[in-house]
Amino acid sequence: MSKNVGTVNLAKILQGNKRVIDDYIFKFLPKRNKIAEINLLYRMMRDYPARPGKGLRSSLCLLTCEAFGGGAEKAIVTASALELFHNWILIHDDLEDMSEMRRKQPVLHRKYGIPLAINAGDALHGRMWELLLRNREVLGDAKTLEILHEIRRTVNETTEGQHMELTWVKENRWDLSLENYVEMCTKKTSWFTCISPCRTGAIIADAHPKDVEGLIEFGANLGVAFQIQDDVLNLIGEEAKYGKEISGDIWEGKRTLVLIRLLKVCNGEDRSLILSIMNKKREDKTTAEVREILNLMKKYGAIEYARRTAERLTGRAKASLSGLSRNFKDDEAKATLFALVDFMVRRDW
Amino acid sequence: MSKNVGTVNLAKILQGNKRVIDDYIFKFLPKRNKIAEINLLYRMMRDYPARPGKGLRSSLCLLTCEAFGGGAEKAIVTASALELFHNWILIHDDLEDMSEMRRKQPVLHRKYGIPLAINAGDALHGRMWELLLRNREVLGDAKTLEILHEIRRTVNETTEGQHMELTWVKENRWDLSLENYVEMCTKKTSWFTCISPCRTGAIIADAHPKDVEGLIEFGANLGVAFQIQDDVLNLIGEEAKYGKEISGDIWEGKRTLVLIRLLKVCNGEDRSLILSIMNKKREDKTTAEVREILNLMKKYGAIEYARRTAERLTGRAKASLSGLSRNFKDDEAKATLFALVDFMVRRDW
Repeated sequence: MSKNVGTVNLAKILQGNKRVIDDYIFKFLPKRNKIAEINLLYRMMRDYPARPGKGLRSSLCLLTCEAFGGGAEKAIVTASALELFHNWILIHDDLEDMSEMRRKQPVLHRKYGIPLAINAGDALHGRMWELLLRNREVLGDAKTLEILHEIRRTVNETTEGQHMELTWVKENRWDLSLENYVEMCTKKTSWFTCISPCRTGAIIADAHPKDVEGLIEFGANLGVAFQIQDDVLNLIGEEAKYGKEISGDIWEGKRTLVLIRLLKVCNGEDRSLILSIMNKKREDKTTAEVREILNLMKKYGAIEYARRTAERLTGRAKASLSGLSRNFKDDEAKATLFALVDFMVRRDW
Repeated sequence: MSKNVGTVNLAKILQGNKRVIDDYIFKFLPKRNKIAEINLLYRMMRDYPARPGKGLRSSLCLLTCEAFGGGAEKAIVTASALELFHNWILIHDDLEDMSEMRRKQPVLHRKYGIPLAINAGDALHGRMWELLLRNREVLGDAKTLEILHEIRRTVNETTEGQHMELTWVKENRWDLSLENYVEMCTKKTSWFTCISPCRTGAIIADAHPKDVEGLIEFGANLGVAFQIQDDVLNLIGEEAKYGKEISGDIWEGKRTLVLIRLLKVCNGEDRSLILSIMNKKREDKTTAEVREILNLMKKYGAIEYARRTAERLTGRAKASLSGLSRNFKDDEAKATLFALVDFMVRRDW
């Protein structure tokens, strides 16, 4: 399908989609309250959505809807809600991981403190459901409920995946395989980033239930490949473009595929060194130690391995998409979807 | 209406309701996952619901439904979801307030750490929506969506109220009046504790929209009176019964009505002393200082004032309920509701 890639201007399409979704979100989110204190909550809720983002989740939803012959305008509410999903989950993830930077700015809890940030995440979570209930006017009762069912499953999967990753860090688990990583990532990342955006788009377009089902495999592979690329960028990206702290995952003790691979292939001496550093808490690690881990990752080809794995998963995702595309009704949306798959795994930000 | 109070065995009714709701909740919440790590998440989600509670929110929902002539069995799903609401909000509130004890045990984040506890709260929040979607089988699509609308408003109100209280503490705000307190408490407590339990019960029973509307005033007054009683128990209750740390609110810097009243009526010297203590962070306060605040509250009659205010609000709630009860269809449920109002404000745990 790669001949299609060159025929669409992906950047322009993504920007256009993002403008539509941003407009909708910022009209939807509350602005002013007569109680002065609450205006700060509203500012906090708008903080992450206002930072530069790619709008991948909403674009996946809109494009899948179009590809299956649905009108993208019917998917705007759901696509916007998926961006709110991303934003409330980020507020809480940044807290859980004790991250420092998000989209080129300090994380929300560094700006406003932990208590207000937890609560703002909950408030935005609530607004996501409020927005999804607006589907009633566009999609009718039954389809609105179908979308709600999809999103509640996605919350379940995402919190389970996040729990897996957090317990690995907390319990100093290192006996992890590629399979463990894929299982965790499918839950933590793929569901809300790819599976559910595509599935809701397909549901809105009245796609055949078999195709809606088939999107799970597509989205699972794409989401893991996307996460691996995120892990790689976290290690060797440009901070100015990437927007998060470079090597933040090493500081935070994240079990990335790169690290899992490194531990598998390194010699015993290096393994002891790596574990002695990685088992330390963030505040006890030094910059030199973090750099040492990064050097070992390069030396043992662990970053290259992760990249190859991402490419392999992307290949699988494309194969699924080719199969599904037999029932596509819009060639431009199809070409854009294929281009988007490549971008998600090859992006540098 | 007080003659009805003696005719019902409230404790027995509450216990019976709680048994039904607990059964439903523990059948609903997931138990086992093939991925070992996730079983801990499931245990965490069941932790607060398994601790001793009164089940007031679910009982209010069931009783209001019955009072308006609806079958309580149709309200079990919603009543159970309201208990999940209470539990996920408690997990996050305990974090935001840095509380120590909840229902006679350490708070969840003291048992499992902050990252896992934030995530478990989100997971339980998601399960609340999942449960509410089960209404579809019992109530049909339109009514299911009506209930969902009510709950999303309740999440908005609750997070706004929580935000107000947290900013008062964070910004060392002391220029607060009874009106400010009532405004905050109506949002933080009344909506999810009284207003929405009663309103969803009434909606399920097909009550007249005017009555559903009228339940806002009833529930607002009852909820604030309930919160004041909670504040009083926090100061002078028995820890063994109350289940939370006694004087925890003073340690946490909470702007309770008792404290607001104390600052209004005390002399300048005492005011300086109180503020110098209350502006300290939890870890910088001493036991003697917390006891000093408590003594001043007693000396200036601030606890008595709060109790009188709660009684006054309860009177208003009962007047609203009398008005609404013209459309009640079940005398026993009506009598039980009046008894429950008294219990909520006079309870000692």
